[in-house]
Amino acid sequence: MSETFFASLPANTHTKGLGPLDAKARMGDITSQGWNILQEQVSLPVAVLSEEKIQHNLAWMQEFIDRYKVKLAPHGKTTMSPELFRMQIDAGAWGITLATAAQIDAAFAFGVRNVLMANQLVGKGNMAIIANLMRQDESFEFCCIVDSADNVDALGHDFAERGQTLRILLEFGIAGGRTGIRNTQQEQAVLAAVARWPQSLSLVGVELYEGVLNEEAPIRAFLQHVVERTQILAESGIFKESAVILSGAGSAWYDVVAEEFSKVGSHLDAAGHYALDVVLRPGCYLTHDVGAYHRASDRIKQNNPIAREMNFSLLPALQVWAYVQSLPEPGRAIVGLGKRDTSSDAGFPVVSGHYRPQSAQNQAYAAVVPAPEAWKIFAMMDQHAFMSIPEGADIKIGDMLSFDISHPCLTFDKWRQLLLINEQYDVTGAVSTWF
Amino acid sequence: MSETFFASLPANTHTKGLGPLDAKARMGDITSQGWNILQEQVSLPVAVLSEEKIQHNLAWMQEFIDRYKVKLAPHGKTTMSPELFRMQIDAGAWGITLATAAQIDAAFAFGVRNVLMANQLVGKGNMAIIANLMRQDESFEFCCIVDSADNVDALGHDFAERGQTLRILLEFGIAGGRTGIRNTQQEQAVLAAVARWPQSLSLVGVELYEGVLNEEAPIRAFLQHVVERTQILAESGIFKESAVILSGAGSAWYDVVAEEFSKVGSHLDAAGHYALDVVLRPGCYLTHDVGAYHRASDRIKQNNPIAREMNFSLLPALQVWAYVQSLPEPGRAIVGLGKRDTSSDAGFPVVSGHYRPQSAQNQAYAAVVPAPEAWKIFAMMDQHAFMSIPEGADIKIGDMLSFDISHPCLTFDKWRQLLLINEQYDVTGAVSTWF
Repeated sequence: MSETFFASLPANTHTKGLGPLDAKARMGDITSQGWNILQEQVSLPVAVLSEEKIQHNLAWMQEFIDRYKVKLAPHGKTTMSPELFRMQIDAGAWGITLATAAQIDAAFAFGVRNVLMANQLVGKGNMAIIANLMRQDESFEFCCIVDSADNVDALGHDFAERGQTLRILLEFGIAGGRTGIRNTQQEQAVLAAVARWPQSLSLVGVELYEGVLNEEAPIRAFLQHVVERTQILAESGIFKESAVILSGAGSAWYDVVAEEFSKVGSHLDAAGHYALDVVLRPGCYLTHDVGAYHRASDRIKQNNPIAREMNFSLLPALQVWAYVQSLPEPGRAIVGLGKRDTSSDAGFPVVSGHYRPQSAQNQAYAAVVPAPEAWKIFAMMDQHAFMSIPEGADIKIGDMLSFDISHPCLTFDKWRQLLLINEQYDVTGAVSTWF
Repeated sequence: MSETFFASLPANTHTKGLGPLDAKARMGDITSQGWNILQEQVSLPVAVLSEEKIQHNLAWMQEFIDRYKVKLAPHGKTTMSPELFRMQIDAGAWGITLATAAQIDAAFAFGVRNVLMANQLVGKGNMAIIANLMRQDESFEFCCIVDSADNVDALGHDFAERGQTLRILLEFGIAGGRTGIRNTQQEQAVLAAVARWPQSLSLVGVELYEGVLNEEAPIRAFLQHVVERTQILAESGIFKESAVILSGAGSAWYDVVAEEFSKVGSHLDAAGHYALDVVLRPGCYLTHDVGAYHRASDRIKQNNPIAREMNFSLLPALQVWAYVQSLPEPGRAIVGLGKRDTSSDAGFPVVSGHYRPQSAQNQAYAAVVPAPEAWKIFAMMDQHAFMSIPEGADIKIGDMLSFDISHPCLTFDKWRQLLLINEQYDVTGAVSTWF
């Protein structure tokens, strides 16, 4: 779908973080309102994306992926924003990774046609959604993952009844982890089930998710084990397409996965019987954060030769702005920002910028200034955050604060629209989310 | 707005927890699809509301409120669902409480005209929203709370410039708590500021939120202190309307607030100079839960004479259904339900029902059976839950599980539509949310 298409979609005029809009406004109309965050035309709290930083992150990750000669299918569950999917595909992504049938249905409706479902497809209602999309567009390229004979038989039976063929990846997992087969016995049981449905199921590769582990050594061992199994399975001729998909990588360890997978890629290629199609799935690079992914980036910067060469620099592109709402006692500010507005499961939002808007009482700041490091959110309720401040801090009710966030996925799902801004805090557009 | 109006609104056809719908489907069309949850016409995860339990809870709370001869303005931020607001108002609620200008804008768009904003109104963009609604409909009854001279001056100045009058409540708070004035000095400063804006501000009552406290004795002391201050202020003639609003009560302590406020209500009335308009604001009673509000209900049942008389019985009306997705190792099930689907900040969802649908491999259960108590969610990721199960548990991939939840507010905001179901799990309708 084109930029014009997205601009023509109706804006949600009954949601937060917007300025005044006609009830019939379209998404594209937001661009031309002339809103500026600092001039208070927009209701706070508001979630904003820095266009410049988004563009930077898009380009950085695509170049990283290109240098490893692998494919990128960013995990779309992070943002569930078709406008951002479009930007990712335009920047060079092969397709979009998604987690559920409903997410895929939404992405498809907005033009996404290459989807890796990094999840099991379970249940008749969900199978019906995927089958229906495959029927709607024969060029829809889709695969999902399997880790049990029961699920394979259910899929095989369902798609056989429909006369359709579903592409599947075998998922490898790790003891104490999430989904994925743990041992040879499970692998054999799943493959035996796959063999029962030669018409309706097509095994086209292997998948893993390394992000349930926290240490590099066991992650590398897991990756190497899966690569070895992939190689053995490929040589056994079990995969149905000449390009064997090998997919891994969340947003924290994509560099290590790129290293391990691309290392073996050329080796497998050398056999000449099949090509390896490595697909990496980081999602949070687009907005980055100041929490877990920021910590991951310190490691990547230090250890990954290509990231070092590229002068690693993902930038936090998603912020939420909110007002200081109350200063009820010394040392404490209450901010109009809650668990309804940002993630709170992986660290509280971190105040970054401070701006005093023009009012009868106050002269406006000339620019946004960095907020003192001592200002820290220490608790959150649904609609409020509690911030500790030193006594005598220069802070006033009505001051505007920008917050960096720690878990993009659980921030995006709290917004139905996010505003795009430039470096002057002008609103240059908006993106929608479809959760 | 009428039921017909809500039925005519476009359904969101690109969201989760739905069956197949035409792209142009209206909300009312969902009623006539003949979907049944157990027959898997609907994609899981799905959030469902039991119509019967919702009706029970609506009626129970309204009778409780009526027996205390007070008013109910349920906190609408819990659900942000205009269809549920309509049900609450039809059941007898005076109006709806809301937390932010954007929430009020949405509620107004769907017909809500009596609003208590249990929050400070801060910032030009937010003031503009409220001023605009007041201008659109002169019968719009609105008040918000103030706890600082700075905010009072900003409001006074803004509404004076607009030539409008804003109704405000003085908020009392507690040391170590959230917003609200802590002491006489702050009270005097706020009242002095209010006096500076006789045309644009109208002080009409007092507000508190007791839910930042956890113990009954300090809560009663706080309530009694505020009642005493209200009485003194009322006698001083500072309020601008003959009915003085006194508002409190979240979803955990509404019984204690009802007791304390109604006790003094008649006393204040006796003076003959003003009437006391007690407005209580519980929100979560509508769906109840199996977490904090369930624990609160044990206390209410034991201690509150009217609740005892009424045979206290709020029922958990909101559930999320999900599939067993993987059984990767003994003792562990992975369920297709994540932090994207239910609250996880106040206890994980609690599995309540278990159903095995019909498939090629399995005979369907005759009915939903209670899930064993030993099945417990112990971790959640964005799209997955980890459930511990005994070895050898009778559980299969594709089994359907219903989950009770622990924090309705942070579950509703993860759904754009929730389905209404009857006791046979037939889908009887849907409600929308506007966050």
